Amino acid sequence: MKSSLLVDVKFDIFGNFDRFRKALPGRQIINWSDLEARPNDLSGIHYALGWKPDEGLFATMPDLKVMFSVGAGVDHMLEDKSLPDLPLVRFVDQSLTSRMSEWICLQCLIHLRQHSLYTRQQKDKLWRDHPQPDAGDLRVGIMGLGILGSDAAAKLKMLGFQVNGWSRTRKTLPGVNCFDESELDEFLACSDILVGLLPLTPQTTGIFNASLFAKLPDTTPIGGPIFINAGRGKSQVEADIISALQDGRLKGVSLDVFEDEPLPQESPLWLIENAVLTPHVASVSDADALATHVAGQIERFEAGLALEYLVDKKTGY
Amino acid sequence: MKSSLLVDVKFDIFGNFDRFRKALPGRQIINWSDLEARPNDLSGIHYALGWKPDEGLFATMPDLKVMFSVGAGVDHMLEDKSLPDLPLVRFVDQSLTSRMSEWICLQCLIHLRQHSLYTRQQKDKLWRDHPQPDAGDLRVGIMGLGILGSDAAAKLKMLGFQVNGWSRTRKTLPGVNCFDESELDEFLACSDILVGLLPLTPQTTGIFNASLFAKLPDTTPIGGPIFINAGRGKSQVEADIISALQDGRLKGVSLDVFEDEPLPQESPLWLIENAVLTPHVASVSDADALATHVAGQIERFEAGLALEYLVDKKTGY
Repeated sequence: MKSSLLVDVKFDIFGNFDRFRKALPGRQIINWSDLEARPNDLSGIHYALGWKPDEGLFATMPDLKVMFSVGAGVDHMLEDKSLPDLPLVRFVDQSLTSRMSEWICLQCLIHLRQHSLYTRQQKDKLWRDHPQPDAGDLRVGIMGLGILGSDAAAKLKMLGFQVNGWSRTRKTLPGVNCFDESELDEFLACSDILVGLLPLTPQTTGIFNASLFAKLPDTTPIGGPIFINAGRGKSQVEADIISALQDGRLKGVSLDVFEDEPLPQESPLWLIENAVLTPHVASVSDADALATHVAGQIERFEAGLALEYLVDKKTGY
Repeated sequence: MKSSLLVDVKFDIFGNFDRFRKALPGRQIINWSDLEARPNDLSGIHYALGWKPDEGLFATMPDLKVMFSVGAGVDHMLEDKSLPDLPLVRFVDQSLTSRMSEWICLQCLIHLRQHSLYTRQQKDKLWRDHPQPDAGDLRVGIMGLGILGSDAAAKLKMLGFQVNGWSRTRKTLPGVNCFDESELDEFLACSDILVGLLPLTPQTTGIFNASLFAKLPDTTPIGGPIFINAGRGKSQVEADIISALQDGRLKGVSLDVFEDEPLPQESPLWLIENAVLTPHVASVSDADALATHVAGQIERFEAGLALEYLVDKKTGY
């Protein structure tokens, strides 16, 4: 009998788990959300997949060997201070990556091509053109150059944007001017559009705040800097974003993530012009792809090969 | 004395023509719109640049050698039935091309990522996600594979879309499934998103009509076919587009061009949900780039080299 997989995810995207049964034939799939199906004895279970798993749950699994995250980010798992010191595998998948790049390219183009302005004009039946820089006139700065950031950089470059990138340790990407931790101010000073794709760690909590926005260029070819965040909501200070939009420090924003999700009804962000909001849908994990990914890594592990996409729990990503 | 350039454009993007004087040193630039500057004698002028030039004007220039179009399309010049039988050069420029691709990628992503739906939800402060196919699930069909269509095809491909192309004579483009004149129905049947980038000719006038829309797929991963037009407005039958949007034959449209421009106030298109309209701004000729282009072709011509980007007046493009 092959070892079981325990799944503790806090939402319902996986339906009846049939896709996991198909991808992992011969293994028991334990849905922790199904109270009646919870085993009394967690011994003998080698694998666990989580999204905000119950605090302490994984620590009570005596034979656990590998933990999997439902997403590319793992902050939702590292919050559990009792998380065992075992390999933690993030979710990496071509569809997850390309969906994120779709969303980022869409948002950069929306701001470049003044889409919100033209939408308002359409409502007023107004036929009027406006001066239009092209992508090559704009510098997009991507903070976070993991798999998602690198893919977005390549696609933005191909659309014609100038692309800069920042990461804690310097990366090398073709056609992208890369900055490291010590060069943050220099990087921000040349970011007409700033794209956040950072993992949530103590260092990145609240990093997108008034003092950071103050370091963006004062003028840009589209009338001011743009901030786009598809990383984690707790990396941004929404009160500062709102002030910056109101006083013109920021020309516009696109946000897919928020300090609290769902975004509270009373947030002024909902109704600010030039704030484009989406409900954490930039890149949703595809359940079939996730099942395939988990099955593939378990297969590697049992064949004695190294696991891929391992998280460094010290840095938090 | 080098030969002069006569410029007859019907709008004001060129300002004081200094950019032409800079690009063409030593030549007189005659602005036909400036009534006081019009010479009585048009002899000795070898070059003319036009946008909807006065009917018959170019025919009255006894020494005219080369005609230039302000845009990539030339229908506005071929309308003049007395246009002399001389080389006609279209405008081709990297910026013109990349701006068009920006607009087309933006519109494809808007429909793929259900941007209008999420915008409406934002207004209602509604946090709700929807099933989301990715670009790879969608087939974009581009009608017209000239310089603009080929560039858009490559960029859509890179964003992850499946890309098909149609042209009168079959083209070969990397990664693009190309169809020719005889295969139009087959091409339409696999176009979840149809992109029009056709020149205006007798054959393409009114081509985007109810009978063509009927040949698009009935169902697509985003709930129905999308029509996008950035070619020429007279290629589309707006009454048919409006009916198709109303009865659901089309799920959405993005239109930058219209049968009559500006789009008349009474057109129902302005207020149809899922109709994204822009006022013929998808790709606006950059005046500096145009001046450089015209200067470069005149230089080639006077050096005895072949002109580039020549229009075939029989096919009309």
